[in-house]
Amino acid sequence: LTTVALDLLGGDGAPDAVVDAIASLVLSGDFVDGSLALVAVGPVDQTESLLRERGLVGRVRTVQAGAAVPMEGDPLEHLRAHADATVSVGVDLVASGAADAFVSMGHSGATVAAAALGLGRIPGVVRPALAVVIPALAGPVVLLDAGATTDASSDALLQHALAGWAYACALGWPAPSVGLLTIGSEAGKGDQLRRDAQALLADQLPLAGIAYAGPVEGHDVALGHGARVIVTDGFTGNVLLKGLEGAVRWCALQMGAAYPDPVPAREVARATATSDFAGGLVLGVNGVVVAGHGAGSPEEVAACVRLAARAARGGVVDGTRAVLDGLAQVRL
Amino acid sequence: LTTVALDLLGGDGAPDAVVDAIASLVLSGDFVDGSLALVAVGPVDQTESLLRERGLVGRVRTVQAGAAVPMEGDPLEHLRAHADATVSVGVDLVASGAADAFVSMGHSGATVAAAALGLGRIPGVVRPALAVVIPALAGPVVLLDAGATTDASSDALLQHALAGWAYACALGWPAPSVGLLTIGSEAGKGDQLRRDAQALLADQLPLAGIAYAGPVEGHDVALGHGARVIVTDGFTGNVLLKGLEGAVRWCALQMGAAYPDPVPAREVARATATSDFAGGLVLGVNGVVVAGHGAGSPEEVAACVRLAARAARGGVVDGTRAVLDGLAQVRL
Repeated sequence: LTTVALDLLGGDGAPDAVVDAIASLVLSGDFVDGSLALVAVGPVDQTESLLRERGLVGRVRTVQAGAAVPMEGDPLEHLRAHADATVSVGVDLVASGAADAFVSMGHSGATVAAAALGLGRIPGVVRPALAVVIPALAGPVVLLDAGATTDASSDALLQHALAGWAYACALGWPAPSVGLLTIGSEAGKGDQLRRDAQALLADQLPLAGIAYAGPVEGHDVALGHGARVIVTDGFTGNVLLKGLEGAVRWCALQMGAAYPDPVPAREVARATATSDFAGGLVLGVNGVVVAGHGAGSPEEVAACVRLAARAARGGVVDGTRAVLDGLAQVRL
Repeated sequence: LTTVALDLLGGDGAPDAVVDAIASLVLSGDFVDGSLALVAVGPVDQTESLLRERGLVGRVRTVQAGAAVPMEGDPLEHLRAHADATVSVGVDLVASGAADAFVSMGHSGATVAAAALGLGRIPGVVRPALAVVIPALAGPVVLLDAGATTDASSDALLQHALAGWAYACALGWPAPSVGLLTIGSEAGKGDQLRRDAQALLADQLPLAGIAYAGPVEGHDVALGHGARVIVTDGFTGNVLLKGLEGAVRWCALQMGAAYPDPVPAREVARATATSDFAGGLVLGVNGVVVAGHGAGSPEEVAACVRLAARAARGGVVDGTRAVLDGLAQVRL
């Protein structure tokens, strides 16, 4: 049984989109066969009333929480002042073992911060990373960090590489290769951080038994020929991820307009947004937490729950801990 | 009369793609009416023979040069050892006034380096930038630096902002606003470089009479709602640009496959590649030089020539010099 807790109040469409997602998830195969359970985290009165409206009372557990973290202001400050924020309560369910994973479509910075505060970092991890699964042409690719931490060091990029590899393994990908996002494929290209990281990854990843695919470029993220796991700092990763989202919206409109019926092109964009791509997994913390991105439609919420359940079942946290610990032993 | 010199040997499709581009350009309106002239830069025997095959002898000037800079190795080293490299000879034509602009589809790092060496930097510019015109949904956007210089300082981003603004003005855009590419739209977001640059741009751009649009995000580059000129460092800009190219290729295949006929979707991608987007302008040097990107098809070469001619006619170099000088005066 995998139990996923859901932030009822996170995201533009909350709480309706979250309750709609619950309504569709209770019809799914793994809910019906008892291998998936859901917990709705929010003000209990509001939650119960919404569940009642949709005939869902008794199908999912409810846990009391206060408000969501507002999109404005410093999320860390807000979390410190509001222990009952939905993300804090949800993360605490994972910390206590009451849930196997937590999903929020709200402020992703707040979700990352709550995960780091409530779960603690895995030994050897200095900063958490946000990892997204990109549906690249040659097959899915894990891109990280998508925005959890700016101003990374080369050591942080090595930690991201190990955690990203463990995530890809948890998703069931066999022997995923790891590449470093840079510019130009020749040695010595890129900025100072990349030149440092290039040497470190080439040296250390093989010690951990991980295939280092070398430098990859921006187009490799959508094409997927370079590596299965693509590592970068949170600034570059977030700019690139949002750039890709903008490009897909551009294409849906421009390419759709090239046909009498624009709907199939838009449908490709919609299907992409409701794939594994709908959420980022917080890596490097002692638990499975997914920060949803995009507008947070019911389909996107449901996609995030499926992703969280897969990551929990695949043992991403134990896998990350093992590979970090293994490399630390070799380096001693 | 605007004279554009062309690197006969630069790019994957050279020299045939370049000669094919010349063949199409001599049929264009501004060539026929005498407002555009072309110079082919390459080994004269080879050039003459290719022009003869296509009945172009006497239509364009030819200037003797040696080989192109190879894609492998350090371009700066190669340029120092080979004064007759096509990019060096082409840039010298601009420096001497024999041409108003130079276009190469070859190694873009070599083109930028040759431009900086042969033309010198505009006073106040520490490093050149590569600026691309993105056909965003809300209208075209100038993105820079697309990869000329990694490891930028906030001062370099301010110089890019001024040069990018002058480029947008040279393209005829009225009062273009300038935005800083970062993550999150709140003040204080982004990495250290962006936090420094944010304060500097907000302070200095208004002194130069330029509207500062504030922070913009990755999706603004394809959507175009944030600002007409988007400033970033060359590492982030290159990753994002290649990411967008990858996403458009992804969409052409995925969205095209959603229809019985994939050709219209592919045609949107092809038309984009052969728009102003086909080349990057080297900004901050004393002359107009365009580094083509992509595979360098004849259509892309011709698009780069048109872009170079527009930038030269618009007075991008004088405009950049004037805005840098004006701000320097105000800051004294």
